[in-house]
Amino acid sequence: MRFSLTNEFKEKLKDEIQNHNIDFIKKSLEGISYVDITELLLEFNSFDSKYVIDNIDIETSAMIISELDEDDRKNFLKIFSADELAKFLELIDSDDGADILSELSEDFRNNVISEIEDSEKSKNLKDLLQYDDNVAGGLMAMELVKCNINWKINQCIELIKKQAQNVSNIYSVYVTDNKGKLLGKVSLKDIILAKDNSQIKDVYDDYVISVDAKMNQEEVSQIMQKYDLTVLPVINKRGKLLGRITIDDVVDVITETAEEERQIMSGITSDVEEDDSVWKLSNARLPWLIIGILGGLFGAFFLGSFENNYFKNNQIFLSLTFFIPLIMATAGNVGIQSSSIVIQSLSNPSAFENSVTNRLFKVLFVSIINGIILSIIVYSGLLIFDYFNYLDFELYSQTAIIVSISLFSIVIVSSLLGTITPIILNKLNFNPALASGPFITTTNDLIALAIYFVVALFIGGI
Amino acid sequence: MRFSLTNEFKEKLKDEIQNHNIDFIKKSLEGISYVDITELLLEFNSFDSKYVIDNIDIETSAMIISELDEDDRKNFLKIFSADELAKFLELIDSDDGADILSELSEDFRNNVISEIEDSEKSKNLKDLLQYDDNVAGGLMAMELVKCNINWKINQCIELIKKQAQNVSNIYSVYVTDNKGKLLGKVSLKDIILAKDNSQIKDVYDDYVISVDAKMNQEEVSQIMQKYDLTVLPVINKRGKLLGRITIDDVVDVITETAEEERQIMSGITSDVEEDDSVWKLSNARLPWLIIGILGGLFGAFFLGSFENNYFKNNQIFLSLTFFIPLIMATAGNVGIQSSSIVIQSLSNPSAFENSVTNRLFKVLFVSIINGIILSIIVYSGLLIFDYFNYLDFELYSQTAIIVSISLFSIVIVSSLLGTITPIILNKLNFNPALASGPFITTTNDLIALAIYFVVALFIGGI
Repeated sequence: MRFSLTNEFKEKLKDEIQNHNIDFIKKSLEGISYVDITELLLEFNSFDSKYVIDNIDIETSAMIISELDEDDRKNFLKIFSADELAKFLELIDSDDGADILSELSEDFRNNVISEIEDSEKSKNLKDLLQYDDNVAGGLMAMELVKCNINWKINQCIELIKKQAQNVSNIYSVYVTDNKGKLLGKVSLKDIILAKDNSQIKDVYDDYVISVDAKMNQEEVSQIMQKYDLTVLPVINKRGKLLGRITIDDVVDVITETAEEERQIMSGITSDVEEDDSVWKLSNARLPWLIIGILGGLFGAFFLGSFENNYFKNNQIFLSLTFFIPLIMATAGNVGIQSSSIVIQSLSNPSAFENSVTNRLFKVLFVSIINGIILSIIVYSGLLIFDYFNYLDFELYSQTAIIVSISLFSIVIVSSLLGTITPIILNKLNFNPALASGPFITTTNDLIALAIYFVVALFIGGI
Repeated sequence: MRFSLTNEFKEKLKDEIQNHNIDFIKKSLEGISYVDITELLLEFNSFDSKYVIDNIDIETSAMIISELDEDDRKNFLKIFSADELAKFLELIDSDDGADILSELSEDFRNNVISEIEDSEKSKNLKDLLQYDDNVAGGLMAMELVKCNINWKINQCIELIKKQAQNVSNIYSVYVTDNKGKLLGKVSLKDIILAKDNSQIKDVYDDYVISVDAKMNQEEVSQIMQKYDLTVLPVINKRGKLLGRITIDDVVDVITETAEEERQIMSGITSDVEEDDSVWKLSNARLPWLIIGILGGLFGAFFLGSFENNYFKNNQIFLSLTFFIPLIMATAGNVGIQSSSIVIQSLSNPSAFENSVTNRLFKVLFVSIINGIILSIIVYSGLLIFDYFNYLDFELYSQTAIIVSISLFSIVIVSSLLGTITPIILNKLNFNPALASGPFITTTNDLIALAIYFVVALFIGGI
């Protein structure tokens, strides 16, 4: 059932492309999903891939072009003429077509549009290009089947027969009034079940969830997930039906959002993948590393001046420095745990939200419990170290008290910071996942160090 | 179109539940999606919620029960009788029904099953309970429409009419042979388009992607995403059609996988949400924090013994400790960046994988570039500090050289570790996201500290 790609087949196909063996290419790729052919062509150079695309059936070629991701496509399409691209665009859904056009230079884009023979298709594409990538209008396809509420079922079936070849997946037929305003929907199942002479208005379902073309894509994705929708109609502000969003596009949004979040959490700036160039990979990583380095230099400066100005007894300061790794690691772990839970609830908003105060109180309780437990563990750990003479601290007992008390304070402060930061970022329309990223964790590290040494000064009474 | 939940409505409804005002409850909830009613009921106590469920139409009630998530449902269902549950189960898809049953105690489960009047439904549910939660069989519903390849279209339409009320969303009709082996599919569109007297074998599509009932749910989800499928048939090892998986269940898998990954990356053990109890939240966080603390104690022990045994001159050791935050933060950032990119490519496997050696070579190049740049930045930073007399190190120039060189080594080592760890975890069937979690980052921290002080010993020549 599923086609399995092998290296042998890849090599064989590469050879036959060199031999211009069109028969072999056609025959061996027949009945294989365009998804698999795309994956295979990505292993070849652009000219070999184009040779394959030129020689298989054009519907499959068009789907391959629409399947490519933006990075791969940008380079690949350079070797196609406007005329060739226009033919592909006539065969694929307008949402994918608009994505492809938006990646082209303005001149080339206009050339391609002018080569499209189907005037409705080129109008649709021009309309879709008006929308931002990340709103409902940027996700929707304009191909859909709609019936007037005053029609009979027969008329609707006739229309489906006429339009069927333009609309790739029909899940529902939308019902509109004379002005095109969305009133409801009829499923294909209900159309098959209905008697031939019944009227649309007797069988349609007037409960239909729709979204405005300007709605943000994350919100669209949340609605489709929440209501388990396979397809979602898009309307303008007067309620007129404009297009439909299908679940596969939203699955892409969900996956991209998760990937973006992971990249933000791990301090990688731009959208990179493992097979990008060494230079691009290095560039994507450097900015946050440099911020971490600057934070570290500031930390060194802070420790240095602290030591010089406040600690007359070097030996105490020295034994305190042994615990810097422990303090920093705990501050980091606690902060990331707290923000992770808040980020999760921000990405699944409910109609009834917790107030910020309630959230902070709850986190405060959790962190007091954890802070007490962790401080006891550290204090006991140091007792054991001392008993076996593993540590050779002067003023041992003072160090143990300083570490335990500052650890307790740091668990509380980092929890609260980790909770409030994503909420603030979200309010300011930044991605709350930034709160788990290097900038905030670096700040968190420095705050933890400051707390540690300030507590030491107070308790040490130095 | 969308119902918007307000606090006023919530309060009003709560009052009318107390007044046993059944008319108000029925009328005000009429035409509202079960998804919204579920969200509303979660704000009430179990008895008030049950009062609502008992008094609205039973189809909606059944959908509400299936919409609840496991945690909420477990408690809520305790106040229902086996008979009441059985009635709900008859109305919802078998996949959701099996999920509900699997959450019940064995005795109660058997009671509920014996109360189900529809014998096909109870057989289906018993069959589904045999599958693990996380395989294709655990995701599939058994309700589907299938036609024999030798039928006429008319016969198929008759069957659809008969089965339509049992199957909530029909996207495709599956085509099987006399033994029930899956041969292909016909879309409802094609059925509408076909002439009445045509045969299934003339209009069906023999290209259909299917999965084995034992396939892991992550793999199922990858296939549905890759091939943009809305519904995916499930077969047994002899090719017999067993059921179908719909995209909404896979969207849940995708979201859960992303959430699980975030929790692993941020060191939270079990599946917790912000509205869980303080105790549960605290418990979920403690294990990794304790591991971090143990790592920190080991770090302290390491630094202490290093200082005692190798550094005769305390002053050099002291100035080196100022840079511990810088060293640790960079090691952590580099490690997480590297593993994040590998985790991403592991979760989108391609037919043609990079070899481990190729990956490591690439990462090596990236880290050499970044290591050189970061070392230069640190060295220059220290030159500037020195120029303005910000730092009061003895043996300043030696410290600057030690920090720069060990930073370079640490960038390379942490990159390689960050790359190889998720690959190894994946090979051992662990979640590769563990590589970004606290255990590995703690190890990474300690390795970085060790490199730092070993480099210091060599260069300092102490």
